[in-house]
Amino acid sequence: METLSTNIAHGGMQGVYSHASGATNTDMTFSVFVPPHAPGAALPVLWYLSGLTCTHANVTEKGEYRAACAEKGVIFIAPDTSPRGDEVADEDSYDFGKGAGFYLDASEAPWSRHYRMRSYIEEDLPALIADQFPMADMTRQGITGHSMGGHGALTIALRNPARFRSVSAFAPIVAPMQVPWGQKALPRYLGEDRETWRRYDACALIDDGARVPELLVDQGLADNFLADGQLRPELLEQACERAGIDLTLRRQPGYDHSYYFISTFMADHVAWHAERLK
Amino acid sequence: METLSTNIAHGGMQGVYSHASGATNTDMTFSVFVPPHAPGAALPVLWYLSGLTCTHANVTEKGEYRAACAEKGVIFIAPDTSPRGDEVADEDSYDFGKGAGFYLDASEAPWSRHYRMRSYIEEDLPALIADQFPMADMTRQGITGHSMGGHGALTIALRNPARFRSVSAFAPIVAPMQVPWGQKALPRYLGEDRETWRRYDACALIDDGARVPELLVDQGLADNFLADGQLRPELLEQACERAGIDLTLRRQPGYDHSYYFISTFMADHVAWHAERLK
Repeated sequence: METLSTNIAHGGMQGVYSHASGATNTDMTFSVFVPPHAPGAALPVLWYLSGLTCTHANVTEKGEYRAACAEKGVIFIAPDTSPRGDEVADEDSYDFGKGAGFYLDASEAPWSRHYRMRSYIEEDLPALIADQFPMADMTRQGITGHSMGGHGALTIALRNPARFRSVSAFAPIVAPMQVPWGQKALPRYLGEDRETWRRYDACALIDDGARVPELLVDQGLADNFLADGQLRPELLEQACERAGIDLTLRRQPGYDHSYYFISTFMADHVAWHAERLK
Repeated sequence: METLSTNIAHGGMQGVYSHASGATNTDMTFSVFVPPHAPGAALPVLWYLSGLTCTHANVTEKGEYRAACAEKGVIFIAPDTSPRGDEVADEDSYDFGKGAGFYLDASEAPWSRHYRMRSYIEEDLPALIADQFPMADMTRQGITGHSMGGHGALTIALRNPARFRSVSAFAPIVAPMQVPWGQKALPRYLGEDRETWRRYDACALIDDGARVPELLVDQGLADNFLADGQLRPELLEQACERAGIDLTLRRQPGYDHSYYFISTFMADHVAWHAERLK
């Protein structure tokens, strides 16, 4: 692991790091905020998965999580959204290829060579964190994310209920099989067999029996991607109702899809996770 | 005034606006956060002047002021740091020309044509704010800033004590006549007569009799520009002691010159100003 930068902030340490990932076969960059803590302390970990076009940097700069994480004693980890590098297949599109890894392991060429963000978030990066950040208590992990990263948080948590004690999301894609973003990305990354898509669709996972104890979701009502039918929180609502999952879905009048929305409710989410990760 | 963007955030409205400035003879862009408030309310105003290389966008994205301004009911205004546009004289330098207006009215060609940031902040933009934001109570203004913008905040407040009830700064340039940044910029903008420089040097203004009731300054001790001798907070300390100005200078171990530093102490500064602007 290479340290790219460290800055003291809110009494803790905001770092940006790089490592050679065996999952993606590329170098990957991520950020970690370690709050102020006593020597030898074991701290819970909150993962934040970012949305389309983002890197680790967007939430690190604009997310306004550090004050809350410092107050609650929570480590905050922000990975990238796709493999990077000249050798990585890409196309000129904001919602497919680089910056749009959809937190899946691609099976189709040429994407299958590097687009393995599921393995990266589920196995590779947590192993590195456990090894390099001794204050991280990997028995107490929560996960959240925004938009495509909300999709990532929901699906990864639903497939790994033993790993995460708490799950939330900001304006998540809840049913990629039923919306244009997913209908573009899933067949190209995964092939035409829709059964394989279901492992990457939160609503389908729930219908197939996956469970988490509860969910917190914030959704801005002035979100243009809500209006465009990319998010469809009502589908998550219906799936949770069918499954008996305790979903708190807060529809926030006036809020859009930007970091102005995320940063407004970030402290709420950090506190919500901290309570469950105590 | 043209509205470039508006986003709901922390219950208020973060806007970015543009207008044709009579002071700089250019279009100028600035941001205003209006906190949630009752209809007809009159709200205090906090000006934030940015540092070298910045525009309004840096603090707007990274400053973490909105939660505190929403809680305290304070309007937050972030202007640009220089005139902009193809017609504006410039050179390939981070600390002179565009992004480095030093909040002065230049007297020397070619800079005198557009580099009039003093008039812009002292007269032009406040008149626009008073006209366009009826909830802004212009009898209750405070000012702060970072680095070159800390210099701007201090010098503008010292020259206009009746306008500002509260003044603070983050890692300010306190004595440009005595440090490399100022010794490069002042002669080129203002000419060789050092007497004219004194109106743009906080320590010289204090020595010449300018007064504010009190000052709050935060300075990171791991700030590379502190080590380089660009900031020299001890000179402000000495000037305030000679003048009997109540300076609270907080030296913050471990903090650097970045927005990680600024955002950490921003809520403190907003609360400090809000208390004095009640």
